[in-house]
Amino acid sequence: MSQKIGFIGLGRMGNAMVEHMLEKGIEVVAYNRTKEKVDEIAREGATPAYSLKEMFEKLRGEGNERAIIWLMIKSGDPVDQLLFALADGWKKMEEESLSDFLHEGDIVIDGGNSYYKDTKRRAGLLKEKGVHFMDCGTSGGIQGARHGACLMVGGEKDVYDEIEWLYRSLAQENGYGYMGANGSGHYVKMVHNAIEYGMMQSIAEGLDLLETGAQDSLGNPLQLAEVLRVWNHGSIVESYLTRITEHALTVDPHLNQIGDRVDDNGEGAWTILEAISAKIPFLTVAHALFMRYTTRRDESFAMKVVAAQRNEFGGHEVEKK
Amino acid sequence: MSQKIGFIGLGRMGNAMVEHMLEKGIEVVAYNRTKEKVDEIAREGATPAYSLKEMFEKLRGEGNERAIIWLMIKSGDPVDQLLFALADGWKKMEEESLSDFLHEGDIVIDGGNSYYKDTKRRAGLLKEKGVHFMDCGTSGGIQGARHGACLMVGGEKDVYDEIEWLYRSLAQENGYGYMGANGSGHYVKMVHNAIEYGMMQSIAEGLDLLETGAQDSLGNPLQLAEVLRVWNHGSIVESYLTRITEHALTVDPHLNQIGDRVDDNGEGAWTILEAISAKIPFLTVAHALFMRYTTRRDESFAMKVVAAQRNEFGGHEVEKK
Repeated sequence: MSQKIGFIGLGRMGNAMVEHMLEKGIEVVAYNRTKEKVDEIAREGATPAYSLKEMFEKLRGEGNERAIIWLMIKSGDPVDQLLFALADGWKKMEEESLSDFLHEGDIVIDGGNSYYKDTKRRAGLLKEKGVHFMDCGTSGGIQGARHGACLMVGGEKDVYDEIEWLYRSLAQENGYGYMGANGSGHYVKMVHNAIEYGMMQSIAEGLDLLETGAQDSLGNPLQLAEVLRVWNHGSIVESYLTRITEHALTVDPHLNQIGDRVDDNGEGAWTILEAISAKIPFLTVAHALFMRYTTRRDESFAMKVVAAQRNEFGGHEVEKK
Repeated sequence: MSQKIGFIGLGRMGNAMVEHMLEKGIEVVAYNRTKEKVDEIAREGATPAYSLKEMFEKLRGEGNERAIIWLMIKSGDPVDQLLFALADGWKKMEEESLSDFLHEGDIVIDGGNSYYKDTKRRAGLLKEKGVHFMDCGTSGGIQGARHGACLMVGGEKDVYDEIEWLYRSLAQENGYGYMGANGSGHYVKMVHNAIEYGMMQSIAEGLDLLETGAQDSLGNPLQLAEVLRVWNHGSIVESYLTRITEHALTVDPHLNQIGDRVDDNGEGAWTILEAISAKIPFLTVAHALFMRYTTRRDESFAMKVVAAQRNEFGGHEVEKK
């Protein structure tokens, strides 16, 4: 099999991965809905494609070669639209889809953060055409995508073995592995992100105490960047997350430039659903996710209720609006 | 000032630190209640002392030198007993204490996990004698103690500057720093350990889902050691804690040899008290600590109450005893 990849999705992660592939000598035929992104990566050595049709023509060449496609697009509906021209996961749309161009034996890899249940469904649909679907949970951020990511792969084991060279090329040394059947890569990535939520929240709450509680207790403020510098050299909490936190606090010691609103991309919520389905306690991610939800509400109705209740039974003052 | 240290407490951490000091060319006069530990470290090059009196004679020599004492003993009462012959922090005991031998200008460093409020109190008592007390939160485990620890130091800044050579000798490169006034080192270490609890619990709950929930969802089990090997090469959760977890799971893939009872040494509880005192939410450590408490009870009275309540209002069956 030639080392040629069709790549769809040239956002920040995708663009960095293609640059990494090119550096590794892999031929990349790159497609993106926005033409400019394709022009840009073509200047770096990728073969440009401005439609799915063109991508497949350039991928298969004269010999009608087997295609390997890497998807790096927004998870959720966009993946179903691209793969099957399906809206909401089931409504057939009037447009060309990737599957119209796929042949038996082709391989499609979803490198995004798809929900593992979607991945299993999509793998089943593609299998009907003899197309192999693989899920690849990708961690390590943009730096990882560019210089060596951490890849958790699910799908058919023999297909994994066949294209292990691709994962090896993209991953940090030793930073890839076969997790299991379709969906396993995205499942492991989902739990990875849930653990990440909990670790971030643990670090964050500890730093909150050091920043806003310690001075009253100690008589002097603490320098958080200095605390983290020390922790990042030999402590038990030393981690990628404490390292990036040190960087953020070195640039902006009291985070004066950053608001406290925090978004999420779904993996935490999916993990909670999964934990409930499996009846396994996973409060760290639940708490971390719910704290993020808290930051996204202007006002908590629950806490208005509590204030009202205290007023009802004890005459305690409420904040008047 | 000569590079000579009086060292008290030759447990696993203390023994490793003395070995490290000796390797760095520091002269160590070592004392421990158990004579055998002193004999042992003397064979490695330390100067043995079998009483506090002997330790100070060997420390001060003819010139009546200023003494630097490093304590590496169990936190809590043992520190008050050793320093002041105080039981329960206030009852005077009939025995010799370290402070009987201390002169003005001497330096005592508490390298253990003392509660920062105790540290502040002890620093105040020693200050009355002109003795400088420093607190040094020590992280990195036995390996760190032996080859380069992570040190968070509190106390008088000029005294810190004077003996920075000592911290530099014992720490991993860059792995030490001045945190602030007396108690600041132990405060930062306390919060470090609280963050550690939360990070451990986050990793643990995620792995619980992967181990006991994933198979039903995916149709195949996951190999946790393999998952962690991948995560430890370039993922966002990569950390000292994921690395030791990989080791544990490589040795015993399903932790069949390990029970689920988990102890604690107090830092998590102190942090919660501190968080409450400062009115700062710190649920990750609270949850992690309370889960440990859960593992130490044969039976939960709370859950018996809940079972009884469900039975009362809904006739739901209870487990009969």
